Amino acid sequence: MKFVLAPDSFKESMTALQVANSMEKGLRRVFPDCEIVKVPMADGGEGTVQSLVDATAGKIISVEVMGPLHTSVQAEFGLLGDGETAVIEMASASGIIHTSHKNRNPLITTTYGTGELIKHALDLGVRKIIIGLGGSATNDGGQGMASALGVKFKNAKGEQVELGGGYLDNIADIDVSGLDPRVAGTEFIVACDVTNPLIGPNGASSVFGPQKGATPEKVKILDRNLGIYAEKIESCLGITTASVAGAGAAGGLGAGLLAFTSAKLQQGIDIVIQFTGLAEKIIGADVVFTGEGGIDYQTKFGKTPYGVANITQKVSPHTPVIALAGAIGEGVENLYGENFTAIFGILRQAGPLGEALKEGEKNVAFTTENIARLLTVGINMPKSIDKHDI
Amino acid sequence: MKFVLAPDSFKESMTALQVANSMEKGLRRVFPDCEIVKVPMADGGEGTVQSLVDATAGKIISVEVMGPLHTSVQAEFGLLGDGETAVIEMASASGIIHTSHKNRNPLITTTYGTGELIKHALDLGVRKIIIGLGGSATNDGGQGMASALGVKFKNAKGEQVELGGGYLDNIADIDVSGLDPRVAGTEFIVACDVTNPLIGPNGASSVFGPQKGATPEKVKILDRNLGIYAEKIESCLGITTASVAGAGAAGGLGAGLLAFTSAKLQQGIDIVIQFTGLAEKIIGADVVFTGEGGIDYQTKFGKTPYGVANITQKVSPHTPVIALAGAIGEGVENLYGENFTAIFGILRQAGPLGEALKEGEKNVAFTTENIARLLTVGINMPKSIDKHDI
Repeated sequence: MKFVLAPDSFKESMTALQVANSMEKGLRRVFPDCEIVKVPMADGGEGTVQSLVDATAGKIISVEVMGPLHTSVQAEFGLLGDGETAVIEMASASGIIHTSHKNRNPLITTTYGTGELIKHALDLGVRKIIIGLGGSATNDGGQGMASALGVKFKNAKGEQVELGGGYLDNIADIDVSGLDPRVAGTEFIVACDVTNPLIGPNGASSVFGPQKGATPEKVKILDRNLGIYAEKIESCLGITTASVAGAGAAGGLGAGLLAFTSAKLQQGIDIVIQFTGLAEKIIGADVVFTGEGGIDYQTKFGKTPYGVANITQKVSPHTPVIALAGAIGEGVENLYGENFTAIFGILRQAGPLGEALKEGEKNVAFTTENIARLLTVGINMPKSIDKHDI
Repeated sequence: MKFVLAPDSFKESMTALQVANSMEKGLRRVFPDCEIVKVPMADGGEGTVQSLVDATAGKIISVEVMGPLHTSVQAEFGLLGDGETAVIEMASASGIIHTSHKNRNPLITTTYGTGELIKHALDLGVRKIIIGLGGSATNDGGQGMASALGVKFKNAKGEQVELGGGYLDNIADIDVSGLDPRVAGTEFIVACDVTNPLIGPNGASSVFGPQKGATPEKVKILDRNLGIYAEKIESCLGITTASVAGAGAAGGLGAGLLAFTSAKLQQGIDIVIQFTGLAEKIIGADVVFTGEGGIDYQTKFGKTPYGVANITQKVSPHTPVIALAGAIGEGVENLYGENFTAIFGILRQAGPLGEALKEGEKNVAFTTENIARLLTVGINMPKSIDKHDI
C-alpha cells in the first residue's frame, strides 16, 4: 500500500508538513507498514515558502529588508533542497501584515524589500526564483522591487523619484543600465492566481486598492499613476504590461516583474506541483490524501486540493483522492466531478474556531485513521463499483 | 448492497428517524438502488418512545396526567405497531422537565402520572408495557405510580398517606387489594441502565437526590423514608427490593415496579434491539450505520451505538459498523475493539453548538455520502486486509 499525503497548510492551525505528519500518524495506526510519501503543498499564497522548503528539505533564510512603510522588517525566503532555486513570498517583505489599519497608505508603500529579497537570493547563486504575489500592501507597480535591483526611475530633472505608488506620475525616464546583471541570467517563476490587468476598472488600484487603505480619491490617483508608469515602461523599454493578465497582481508587481525580469506568470499550484515533483510521486499510489483549512466552491479555482486532484487524474486516473478540511463550505459537491473521491471534515465537536485550530493535529490524525479503517472495509466488499461510476 | 441504518436520536437536533432518513439521502446519492433498512434506535432514555414508534410504525398517544408537582401535565406514550405493546418514558409524566430549578422538591414530587400512563396503556388492551426510567423528578419509590393503579398506602390511622418521598415514613400498611387486576396479566419490561440499590450511599436519594433539588438534609430524610417504604413492602408483600440492583432507578420507581408488577429490569438498548427486531434486520447487511449526538468513552456502557455494534458482532460478525456523531469525545479509541469499524464526526465547520444542531440533517447526509464514496474506493483496492486485522 502506498499513500501520498499532499495537503496544504491549515491556516492558523498547522503547516502543510504538520498536516501531512498527522495524516501519517492516523494511517500508521491502521497500516503500520504502508509506504507513505509526504509532499507538503501550497498554492503560491501564504505558506508556499514553508511548504516548498519542507517538501524539498531546503532551508529558510531570514534577512532584514525595507518593509512596505520604508521601515526595516525581518523577512524570510526559502532555498529549496536543489540549492539552485529560491522561493519568495512578496508579502514577507512587502505584505499587508507589516501594516496596521491606521497606517495603510498605498501612495507610499513600496516593494523595495521584495527587491532586496531577490538580491539576497541572487547572492546565494540561485538560477531560479519563485515569487508568490499574494498579500501585498503595495500599489507601486514593482517600482520599489526594481529600484532595489538597480533600476533608476528619474523625474524630469533627472532626480530619483520617491518610492511609492503616489509618485509614479513623476517618472520621466527609466534607466535600467544599473540593473543587477544576474537578473537577466535568472529564471523568474511568478505564482499569480489573479488575471487582473494593471489598470482600469479591473486593475490593481480599483480592485485591490481599497483593501490596502486607498480611499476612492487615492484609487483614482493610483490608477492614473500606474497608467503613466506603464507608458514609461513601454516608451523606455518597449515592453507592454498594462493590459497583460496578471500584471495587476500585488499592486502591479506583476507588471514590474514582467518589465524588468524574464518573469513567467503561472498558477501558484502548478509551480508547487512542479517543484515538489508531485506528479512522479503520485505514480503507483493507492490513495492520495490532500486537504486545506477550508474547502468550498472556490477550491476549484486553483486551490491546492484541486491541483492535487487534477494532477492525480492526469498521472494516475484510478487513484482515489481524499480531502480533509477544517471547514467545508457550501457547494463542494462540484468537486466530486473534479476527481475528488471523498471530502471529510476533521472537527470532533462544536465550539469556537480558536479551539478547533488548536486541536488540528489530533483531529487530522483521528479522521485519517477512521478513513483508513473504512478503506479496509471497502476492500472486503463486492468489487462491483468503480470510482468513476460515482 | 444492503445497508442497515440504526442510529439513536441526535439530542436537540434530530429524532432517530430523521437521522436515518438523512443517512439514506447520503447513501442514495452514491448507491441509488441499494437496499436500505431503517431502524430508528434508542437506549431506553429520552427518545425511546419516538424511536420505537417510528421503528414499528406505531403511534404516539397524548394524555393529561398528574405531573410530578401534582398539577396536570400533558404526557405521551407510544403504542407499537404490533398493537399489543405500549412504551412509556416515565419522564413524560413525572420528569424533571416538568419542574424548574426553583420548585424542585423530591419530598413532594410523585410518580402518580406514570401510573396513570400505565392505566391508559392498559385501557388499550396491551399485553406488554415497556417503561423507560430516565429523567425523573421524583424520589417516591413508585408510591405514586402504585397509587394510580389502585394500591393503598395507609398510615397508622388507616388514612391514605400523602403522595411524595417525604411522606413514605408514615406508611403503616400497604393494601394491594385494589390494584388494577390487569397489571398482573401484563408483562412489564423496564429499561434501566443504572445498578443503584434503593437505599444507602449508592441509593436513589444519595446519588440522584441532589440533582432533583434535595439538600443534604432532605437526602437524609428521603433515604430513611425509602428504607421504611422497602421494609413495609417486605413485611406486607414479602418482596425484597431495597438491595436489588436497579431498584434505585428513577427515585426508586425501579423498586416500586418490582414490588407491584412483574417487572423485569433490563438494559434499555437490549429492549430496543428486541422490539425493533434489529438482529434479524442486520442479517445480510453489507454495512451497518449507527450514531448518536455524542459518542465518547461512555458509549461503551450501554449506549445505542455500542448496542448496535454488539448485536452486529453477534449476528453478522463480518459486517462493518460505522458510527456518526455530532460530538466525538475523548477515549473513543476503546470502541474499535468493540466492533466499531470507523467513527466520523459530522460537523462541517467550527461554530456554536446551536448552529451545529440546526445543520444536523444536512451534515449527516453529507458525511454519509462521503463515507459511501469511500466505500467504493476500498472496493477497488487489494483484498488483503480483513476488518478484524485492524
